[in-house]
Amino acid sequence: MIKHFTQFENRQTADSLIDLALAYKANPRMHASKGIGKRIGCIFLNPSLRTRASTQIAALQLGMEPIVMNMDKEGWALEMREGVTMNKGTVEHIKDAAGVLGSYFDILAIRAFPTLTNKQEDLEDFVFNQFIKYSGIPVISLESAIRHPLQSLADMISIRENTAESKKPKVVLTWAPHIKAIPHAVANSFSEWALGCGYDLTITHPTGYELDPKFTHGANIEHDQQAALEGADFVYVKNWSAFNDYGKILSTDPAWMLTEKHLKHAKKAKVMHCLPVRRNLELSDEILDGPRSLVQQQAQNRIFAAQAVISSILDGI
Amino acid sequence: MIKHFTQFENRQTADSLIDLALAYKANPRMHASKGIGKRIGCIFLNPSLRTRASTQIAALQLGMEPIVMNMDKEGWALEMREGVTMNKGTVEHIKDAAGVLGSYFDILAIRAFPTLTNKQEDLEDFVFNQFIKYSGIPVISLESAIRHPLQSLADMISIRENTAESKKPKVVLTWAPHIKAIPHAVANSFSEWALGCGYDLTITHPTGYELDPKFTHGANIEHDQQAALEGADFVYVKNWSAFNDYGKILSTDPAWMLTEKHLKHAKKAKVMHCLPVRRNLELSDEILDGPRSLVQQQAQNRIFAAQAVISSILDGI
Amino acid sequence: MIKHFTQFENRQTADSLIDLALAYKANPRMHASKGIGKRIGCIFLNPSLRTRASTQIAALQLGMEPIVMNMDKEGWALEMREGVTMNKGTVEHIKDAAGVLGSYFDILAIRAFPTLTNKQEDLEDFVFNQFIKYSGIPVISLESAIRHPLQSLADMISIRENTAESKKPKVVLTWAPHIKAIPHAVANSFSEWALGCGYDLTITHPTGYELDPKFTHGANIEHDQQAALEGADFVYVKNWSAFNDYGKILSTDPAWMLTEKHLKHAKKAKVMHCLPVRRNLELSDEILDGPRSLVQQQAQNRIFAAQAVISSILDGI
Repeated sequence: MIKHFTQFENRQTADSLIDLALAYKANPRMHASKGIGKRIGCIFLNPSLRTRASTQIAALQLGMEPIVMNMDKEGWALEMREGVTMNKGTVEHIKDAAGVLGSYFDILAIRAFPTLTNKQEDLEDFVFNQFIKYSGIPVISLESAIRHPLQSLADMISIRENTAESKKPKVVLTWAPHIKAIPHAVANSFSEWALGCGYDLTITHPTGYELDPKFTHGANIEHDQQAALEGADFVYVKNWSAFNDYGKILSTDPAWMLTEKHLKHAKKAKVMHCLPVRRNLELSDEILDGPRSLVQQQAQNRIFAAQAVISSILDGI
Repeated sequence: MIKHFTQFENRQTADSLIDLALAYKANPRMHASKGIGKRIGCIFLNPSLRTRASTQIAALQLGMEPIVMNMDKEGWALEMREGVTMNKGTVEHIKDAAGVLGSYFDILAIRAFPTLTNKQEDLEDFVFNQFIKYSGIPVISLESAIRHPLQSLADMISIRENTAESKKPKVVLTWAPHIKAIPHAVANSFSEWALGCGYDLTITHPTGYELDPKFTHGANIEHDQQAALEGADFVYVKNWSAFNDYGKILSTDPAWMLTEKHLKHAKKAKVMHCLPVRRNLELSDEILDGPRSLVQQQAQNRIFAAQAVISSILDGI
Repeated sequence: MIKHFTQFENRQTADSLIDLALAYKANPRMHASKGIGKRIGCIFLNPSLRTRASTQIAALQLGMEPIVMNMDKEGWALEMREGVTMNKGTVEHIKDAAGVLGSYFDILAIRAFPTLTNKQEDLEDFVFNQFIKYSGIPVISLESAIRHPLQSLADMISIRENTAESKKPKVVLTWAPHIKAIPHAVANSFSEWALGCGYDLTITHPTGYELDPKFTHGANIEHDQQAALEGADFVYVKNWSAFNDYGKILSTDPAWMLTEKHLKHAKKAKVMHCLPVRRNLELSDEILDGPRSLVQQQAQNRIFAAQAVISSILDGI
């Protein structure tokens, strides 16, 4: 039983969510009536493909009624600040909108990306936390300004599925080039969950791309990508923008794109990515189309991660 | 049993819709199979948050299948005029689209805002009535050019819930400042329903903001806001643009924004607004966050208003 | 039992789909549990009204869970080419997206319009076939670059409903004026299906508007519209852009707009159009609003065409 699902809590909770997700993967409709008469509202302030579909599917497999709202496109701009005179572009205050949504649904699921310009606001996970504060009901993160816990849970399920029971795998999170300024949420959460689940985590990136130490404390930071990759069991490829020089692109060095050549000392390494992936910019075709790739498995596990989370929240309401 | 739901019909119908809505509020799934095998199409020509969600929820609670179509975003521009050669931007004529929708659904629900520039077309509620004319099935207004009856029904439910049985409450509709030209639909319908339900209604606004007398006949019109508010049991706050000087903004006088100070001679007044509300422009934070506010209750009652209406239409099909 | 539904296969399959569709029209919920626990993903890369609604309705009538995704608006741009470095506007490769969708759904339904500029790519039905190639599950065309088979199946059902059993009807497909460059898909498929179903098909259009002969082989091509229409039982009105001078508008001659006058030697002709129709540009009001018009019947039959197709695919999964 969990209340909100916003971040890694503790290893016991993580392990039982992974166990439950794998049970749903084996038997997706085993609790087909658990959520009957209950509703989940999926609120998107940003675009989505996998998250939108997998969350709806997870809810339907539990018998719930999912209702999707694209606030950015079908609704209007929300005001987030306290006490302002709303005489500009924002049409409704978050406290009014979230209050209504809280009275319409049993669970809310929210996607709210960072600004990448207002570091303080992003670090407070301001928009996401306003929904928690004012809705008064359980809230699931569909990726907030700083975390993407459903992705990380799906990633942990995928690592579990590909790890012998006696093994403590070496996991490497490697930065990859990109042409746009990308949020830190996936990288932060992956580090948080991999460390929390007790894995041996190495993070490698060009100088200047240090993540918020709050999420990486306990990981080995290694600026030499080759050294970092040596002997890896799992290599998670992800771009992120700079954290210290907030939201900036400091490098697009193509040498950081992961290819087979990079894995010559990691023969058995499985390669992971949260998708969408920029092919031949972040990761080479040869890897994505070859036997190392777990990206489709990760994406499919998004369904069962969401189903385990929703199910655990339903236990408490 | 009702056919369409577009406006206030008579007090008996209004009272039985309010009774039914309160019964659904107490027991939302009491008719969970009533609508099985029936479909409602929710057509949005304009953005929506509460209306979109509450109508879907109401339909699901009756066992119906709701299908939402955002004609403005996922579809294309509709031609409304008769006999024109369609060699410009409109892609499909309302009579063809509405005919098809009539053959796809058991009930249609339509949102179609006014132009605020073509007064004659708005007054005829042209777009909305074209859907009624050509679909051939029951139609529910999700806010038309001149009325928002589901909102008013939810408002009447909220007033009923907050009124002692023996009391005939004093209801005040007060104009509030806004930065945009806002439709008359909520104000028109509130006046129509409050008068129709037999309440003592006072409407107050700056000179020049007279509403269409068709909706306000029987109300006290009082240009002195303080005098109007004295002894009020319910104060409904709403902006609207001018009706005579059609669609114009004649005043943004901040003195008309409702604050606690305005209610010093209405100590027990409850304050209402249909949402979305511009905080500290139409209504102060102190009221919205204080014990007088009914706005969340009104919003929640949108579900049960819609459920009572759909249920009453299902009785006839 | 069919695997994919992308084009006319053979007369036996077409006839049994028509029979099944008519059975569903008589009794829409006769297989209300057939699809329980199965999901269909409806992916729109382009706008839609009838197709979006009718496909969802068909799935719901079989007990399936439909999930609609507007990739163009709620998602992001897909990369279609092999081997490119994705350092421009495309965010995700079709092979990754389609792979994920294939693991999320039991059936996919895809709308993907042609470019009308890249003839080779359109002729290969490139985008649509990428979904088939990479999703690994049954795929239904909701209109591809070159075909619109659900529309044609609905058209064949409508012809069957309006034809005496002993009769082999004369069917005429006539080009009509339009102000925009319109795809060939509806015209191609109608020709393919009408010929495949053994009808006597005449196609008439201004010189230069010859369709791809792959779809019209066996039809009479007649540039004199009056001669073509003589004695017609069914007249299908449709604009398309040039095929040889690919995607170009060669004529907007209003004389080609079908009116009652054009049908003076086809007294009993029924008139068809797939909708949306540009009134008084492609087809006159007098025909669309008169007794000859089958357009509403065709549109309604879209539901039962989709239901027969989905049902036949469910037989194999």
